[in-house]
Amino acid sequence: MPTPDPQLHSARLAAVRDRAGALGIDHVVVYSGEDMSYLTGERMDSHERLTALVVPVAGGEPLLVLPALELTDFSRRAAERVGAAIHPWSDGTDPVPLVAGKVAGRVAVSSALPALHLVPLRDGVDGEVVLASEVIDHVRAVKTPDEVEQLAEAARRIDAVHARMGEFLRVGRTEEQAGELITAAIEAEGLTHAEFVIVGSGPHGADPHHGVSDRVIESGDIVVVDIGGPLPSGYHSDCTRTYSMGEPSAEVAESYEVLQEAQRLAREAVRPGVAIGEVDAAAREHLAAAGLGELFIHRTGHGIGLGLHEPPFAMPGADTVLEEGMTFSVEPGIYRSGQWGARLEDIVAVTADGRRDLNTGERGLRVL
Amino acid sequence: MPTPDPQLHSARLAAVRDRAGALGIDHVVVYSGEDMSYLTGERMDSHERLTALVVPVAGGEPLLVLPALELTDFSRRAAERVGAAIHPWSDGTDPVPLVAGKVAGRVAVSSALPALHLVPLRDGVDGEVVLASEVIDHVRAVKTPDEVEQLAEAARRIDAVHARMGEFLRVGRTEEQAGELITAAIEAEGLTHAEFVIVGSGPHGADPHHGVSDRVIESGDIVVVDIGGPLPSGYHSDCTRTYSMGEPSAEVAESYEVLQEAQRLAREAVRPGVAIGEVDAAAREHLAAAGLGELFIHRTGHGIGLGLHEPPFAMPGADTVLEEGMTFSVEPGIYRSGQWGARLEDIVAVTADGRRDLNTGERGLRVL
Repeated sequence: MPTPDPQLHSARLAAVRDRAGALGIDHVVVYSGEDMSYLTGERMDSHERLTALVVPVAGGEPLLVLPALELTDFSRRAAERVGAAIHPWSDGTDPVPLVAGKVAGRVAVSSALPALHLVPLRDGVDGEVVLASEVIDHVRAVKTPDEVEQLAEAARRIDAVHARMGEFLRVGRTEEQAGELITAAIEAEGLTHAEFVIVGSGPHGADPHHGVSDRVIESGDIVVVDIGGPLPSGYHSDCTRTYSMGEPSAEVAESYEVLQEAQRLAREAVRPGVAIGEVDAAAREHLAAAGLGELFIHRTGHGIGLGLHEPPFAMPGADTVLEEGMTFSVEPGIYRSGQWGARLEDIVAVTADGRRDLNTGERGLRVL
Repeated sequence: MPTPDPQLHSARLAAVRDRAGALGIDHVVVYSGEDMSYLTGERMDSHERLTALVVPVAGGEPLLVLPALELTDFSRRAAERVGAAIHPWSDGTDPVPLVAGKVAGRVAVSSALPALHLVPLRDGVDGEVVLASEVIDHVRAVKTPDEVEQLAEAARRIDAVHARMGEFLRVGRTEEQAGELITAAIEAEGLTHAEFVIVGSGPHGADPHHGVSDRVIESGDIVVVDIGGPLPSGYHSDCTRTYSMGEPSAEVAESYEVLQEAQRLAREAVRPGVAIGEVDAAAREHLAAAGLGELFIHRTGHGIGLGLHEPPFAMPGADTVLEEGMTFSVEPGIYRSGQWGARLEDIVAVTADGRRDLNTGERGLRVL
C-alpha cells in the first residue's frame, strides 16, 4: 500500500471547492458514507443521526456537524485533515438548523443524503438545494495514481479467487455451498469481506442480479460467477467470469465468443476524450450485429472506487467524457431467460493514451 | 414462524392510505429497502437504480417503477401483493419522469429516498414533496401480534448468545477474536448474520459505537457487549449486557446498580398513552439524581422492527405517544471517558396495559 499523503484530503477538498466554484455553487453539504470517506478519510456512518461536513466554497473554515456520541479520535482526525471546526449535537436536539444556518445561495448536497435530512434542510435553507453529483461525484471519478494502484491490487486479489474456481464450483454442490467457499477465499485474500457473491447456475445465470440459491449445480450447466470485496482502504473489486460444467453446447460456445469479442471491443474503445456512451455502444453494436442485442438487458458498466457502483456509468447515450484516472467496469452479458446466461467483466482504468486492464485473468469460457 | 397472512400486504397498504388521507397527502412514493419490504414483502434494493412504489392515496392502482433487470418473480410477486402495475425502465433512460408524471399535490416520500432521486423528483413534480415519516414510519411503528412474536423470537436467540458469553470473552483474547466467536454463535442461532458486534473492553467501553479492535481483554476489564442480527424474515434483535473480567471495583459495582435501576424505571414507564420522552426521562432522572447524568451521552432507545433503528426514538422531549404494538430498545449507559463504560439494553413491546420484555436474560453485571 502506498504511504498516505498528508495533504491528500486537503487537496481533495480544494478540488471540490474549485469545481463547485466553477459551477456557481456557494456551499457543499457532504454526507457520511463514501463522500465523507473520500474527503476526510473516515466514513462516519451515523445512520439516522445526521453527520455532515459543510464546506463554504469561497473559503473559510468547513464545519463538521456530528452526533455528540461520535465525537471520537476518528472524527477529530477527520476534521483535522480538512481544517474543519466540529459542532457536536446531542440526542433530543435538532441538528438540521446547525447545517441550514451555515449555508445559503446554491447549496449542493451529497447524492446519498436521505430525504429524512434533505427535506427539513431544504425547508430551512435560505437558497436552493441542488445535487452535488457534478461536483463530488466528478472529483471522485478521476482517480489519482495511488487510487488506481489500490483498485489494481483489489483486482489482483479477486482474480486470484477466480483462478481457484475449480475448487469451489463442483457438480452436486449447491450454489450456496459454492458461495460459502468463494466467500472464505475472498477473505483469505485479505479483502475485508465478500461484498457480493453471485453464483448463477443454469437458468439462474439469466438473472443478472441473482445471488446464490439451493439449486444444485448440474453437469452441463453454464455458471456466471460475479464476485467482489473491498481492501481495508475501502477500494472495491468486481469481476465476473463464466464457467461451463463440462463441454458447452455449440450455441453457448458461439454466443460466448461473440460476447468476449464485444467486451474486447468495448475495452478497446476506452481512451481519454471518448464519451463513455461510446464504450457501451461498442459492446452493444457487436452483440446486435450477431443477433444477440435483445439478450443484453443492462448497461455495459459502472464506475468503481470507494463506491462499488459510482459514476460514471457506461450506458446508451451517456455523455461523460473519459479522463485519465477514471476507473469503471466493462461487463456486457447475454441472458437467455429460463435457460442460461453469460457475462464477462473487467475493471479498466483510463490512461494518458488508452487504458489499463486491472483484471488480467483468462477471459474465455472456462470449462471445469 | 406464523403462517403469512395473504391479506397482510394489502392491509398494510390500506393503513398507509388511511393515514396519508387523514394528513392531506395525495400520493406516497415508497422507496426500496425497509419501507418496500414492509409494504410488499420484498426489499428490492436497487442501489443507484430507482425502484419505487407510487401509491395514489384516494384509490386506484399503485405503480411499481423498477429497473428492467429487476423484473423477476420476486418483483412480480411484490406487485401482485399490493395490486400494483409494473413499469420497468431500461439503463440509459431516465426513470424519474415515470414517477413524477404519476404524482401531484402533496407527495410524501420514504425517509430513505436519497438526494440522487429526490432532487430530480422534486424538480419534476407538479406539487410539494414532503416526508412520509408521519405516514409510513408511524404505520410501521405499530406492530401486529405476529410482528411482535418475530421480534420476541429474535430476542430469544440473541439472549441465547449472551448466555454463552463466558465461552467467548476470555482474558488474553482480543476483542476481535471474541467478536469472531460471537459472530459464529449468532449465525448458529439461525439469525441470518451478525448485523453488528460491539466488544468494548476497558476504555473502549466508554465509546458507545465502538466495534471490535485488537485490544487484548485484561483481567479486571469491564466489557460492554452489544450484539444483534435479523431473522430470515428481516426482524431484528439488539441486546447489550455488561461483563466484568473478575470482581468489579466498588465504584463500578455501585454505578452499575444505579444503571440497572435506571433501566428498570424506564421499562416500568412503558405503557399506552405515555409520551416516549417520559421513558427517556425516567432513566435520565435516576442517573442524574445519583450524579451520573453527565455520563449518559445518548438517547435511551430506538424503535426496532424491519429496521434496526427506526422510529419512535426515546429521547428528551420526544412526544410520540406510545400505542399497543410499538417496540423499542431501552438502553441507558454510563461512559467514563478513557476508563470504562456500561450499558444495559432490552427490547420492549407496548401491550394493552403496560409492556412485555422481549429480552429476558439476567440483567446484573455478570462476573466472568
